[in-house]
Amino acid sequence: MKISDKHWQTIWYNDGDNYFSVIDQSVLPHKFEIRNITSSIEAFFAIKNMIVRGAPLIGVTGAYGFALGIKENPSDDNLKQTFEYLNSARPTAVNLNWGLKRVLNKVITEDPSNRFNKALLEAKDIEREDKEMCSKIGEFGKSIIENIYEKNNLKSRNLPINILTHCNAGWLATVDWGTALAPIYKAHRAGINLHIWVDETRPRNQGANLTSFELKGEDIPHTVITDNAGGYLMQNGEVDLVMVGSDRTTSKGDVCNKIGTYLKALAAKDNEVPFYAALPISTIDWEISDGLKEIPIEARSPEEVSFISGKNNMGQIQKVQITPDETKCFNPSFDVTPSNLVTGLITEKGICKANLNSLGELYK
Amino acid sequence: MKISDKHWQTIWYNDGDNYFSVIDQSVLPHKFEIRNITSSIEAFFAIKNMIVRGAPLIGVTGAYGFALGIKENPSDDNLKQTFEYLNSARPTAVNLNWGLKRVLNKVITEDPSNRFNKALLEAKDIEREDKEMCSKIGEFGKSIIENIYEKNNLKSRNLPINILTHCNAGWLATVDWGTALAPIYKAHRAGINLHIWVDETRPRNQGANLTSFELKGEDIPHTVITDNAGGYLMQNGEVDLVMVGSDRTTSKGDVCNKIGTYLKALAAKDNEVPFYAALPISTIDWEISDGLKEIPIEARSPEEVSFISGKNNMGQIQKVQITPDETKCFNPSFDVTPSNLVTGLITEKGICKANLNSLGELYK
Repeated sequence: MKISDKHWQTIWYNDGDNYFSVIDQSVLPHKFEIRNITSSIEAFFAIKNMIVRGAPLIGVTGAYGFALGIKENPSDDNLKQTFEYLNSARPTAVNLNWGLKRVLNKVITEDPSNRFNKALLEAKDIEREDKEMCSKIGEFGKSIIENIYEKNNLKSRNLPINILTHCNAGWLATVDWGTALAPIYKAHRAGINLHIWVDETRPRNQGANLTSFELKGEDIPHTVITDNAGGYLMQNGEVDLVMVGSDRTTSKGDVCNKIGTYLKALAAKDNEVPFYAALPISTIDWEISDGLKEIPIEARSPEEVSFISGKNNMGQIQKVQITPDETKCFNPSFDVTPSNLVTGLITEKGICKANLNSLGELYK
Repeated sequence: MKISDKHWQTIWYNDGDNYFSVIDQSVLPHKFEIRNITSSIEAFFAIKNMIVRGAPLIGVTGAYGFALGIKENPSDDNLKQTFEYLNSARPTAVNLNWGLKRVLNKVITEDPSNRFNKALLEAKDIEREDKEMCSKIGEFGKSIIENIYEKNNLKSRNLPINILTHCNAGWLATVDWGTALAPIYKAHRAGINLHIWVDETRPRNQGANLTSFELKGEDIPHTVITDNAGGYLMQNGEVDLVMVGSDRTTSKGDVCNKIGTYLKALAAKDNEVPFYAALPISTIDWEISDGLKEIPIEARSPEEVSFISGKNNMGQIQKVQITPDETKCFNPSFDVTPSNLVTGLITEKGICKANLNSLGELYK
């Protein structure tokens, strides 16, 4: 997608020089910096230090990092070591493990001299597939936006369709397009008049930092709100549609997404606002049905609550403490939105209802 | 209530020296400083610059400030001017106007030479009445906590009762005790085992800053969470009771309180958690019934969303910007929780259901 009128991806391989580059997301939106990743060690720290974030992007970064590690030493021993090493950068990131395994499976039976080339091709495939998948999610999701735009007579009244989104499920979390934001980008390109309510998404402020940065780059009108404000907006008819991502989806359509998603889903239900989750089929976990009972929720560092990072009056990025000294904080990172609050799921294979039958139909 | 083992009020009059003192709430929790208010001008700026905040406390501050203004010049002309001047410090604060009017009505028919003494007595009455009112709300609310503590068999299981609160409706918003926190203080003194979930309450972080500071001073176990986390906690049985304040309550029991309250009420309903609002009878507006349609919601400065204030690593209070430059923000300050989500109302006259009949019974 665009930043200052130029098209970017979050990650790309530089063929002549054999390294890959990423946008440093740890300093967005206040600084725009590119990091060149020239070794598996640099790839490890890019993931660990959240220079890249977002499940799909972490998967691609892992795959390219693995390829560089194989270039450094293509031996069987090093294959195994580099796999374990990169996999430990963010142990709970399912896509990281998945990306590394895809590369491993591709090269394990190859002669060491061929392994780097094979690994690099596989990493490029993962990158390409991610873009295609997000683009398809975008196309399917666009039809939902178009339908509501039409149904609510917004065009004839010269009004934008107001879409509320939580966290960042945009192109910065993937290679390009994003998941929950892909339909918005596609709709914008199709000439639909849009306005996006951006939940700031405490504690890490991915909405305030990243979603707003993305939408600014694409010139899509948007307004940042506190996570508290969405209910008020829905009560007052200011939201036509809620569109979020999903980190994990159960077989009956429960959606596990960034903490706070559940509260927005409740408000959407209470005010008859359609609530959609956009997700790659790969996030569906067919092994589990009841998300509330079966999905363990990671508690992240309490310091993400007590300290906030932003730009100070010198233009530097700085942390400030908002709680009294020694105050205890608790920081659950995700919550589960039960399927009865979900209007539908948007995937790269199409749109379906949030239930086992409908998901099963899609998967066939 | 206590700060570092010493009892404080938010405001008190120093009789010998004819000035009053307040805790400077604009620098809490990072600094504890007392401001001496020696003139009506200083009182004006204490209110305007939010050195004092909270509707009841603003009312008392206005009354004392008016008394000092009358001491400066007890003439009829100055009475009127000082009234208007102080009333303009925060035009939307209903209690400010109410406190000023009480003083004005008391002194207007007096000889100018008696006016200061009469005004001072009236201000002291307002202060005393506020404390008594909050103490009564605390006693009534304590019985609700006791009942749930018993009903949920928490004592026998050696478990605390978990109470979630939003914003700061504590003693710092009043003279002493508070409204939503008064029952918690009374229950704590009665030996009930408590744990409080404190919503940080974006955008101004009154929970993270002030409620946590209050609870720390009273040695009540508490944990600060993001505003996003309460739904997850309720889904997982970690909340026994939600207790909030109310800035304005309609005749049918709709509660207008800090933005985000509505989302917590939805989650409480969805998870069968009792949801109570604690409020002085004076916040009930008998003229209005449907809060959603009839209560105008003030939009505050967008900079409260885009900038966050906290303590930097030098110990100084500093603002940092969290959104990209020039990002549009919207900052509605309150929302309306419809009465069907409210289990009950706690007032200084007793507890009632959130409906016209029950409120009427109480008022008789």
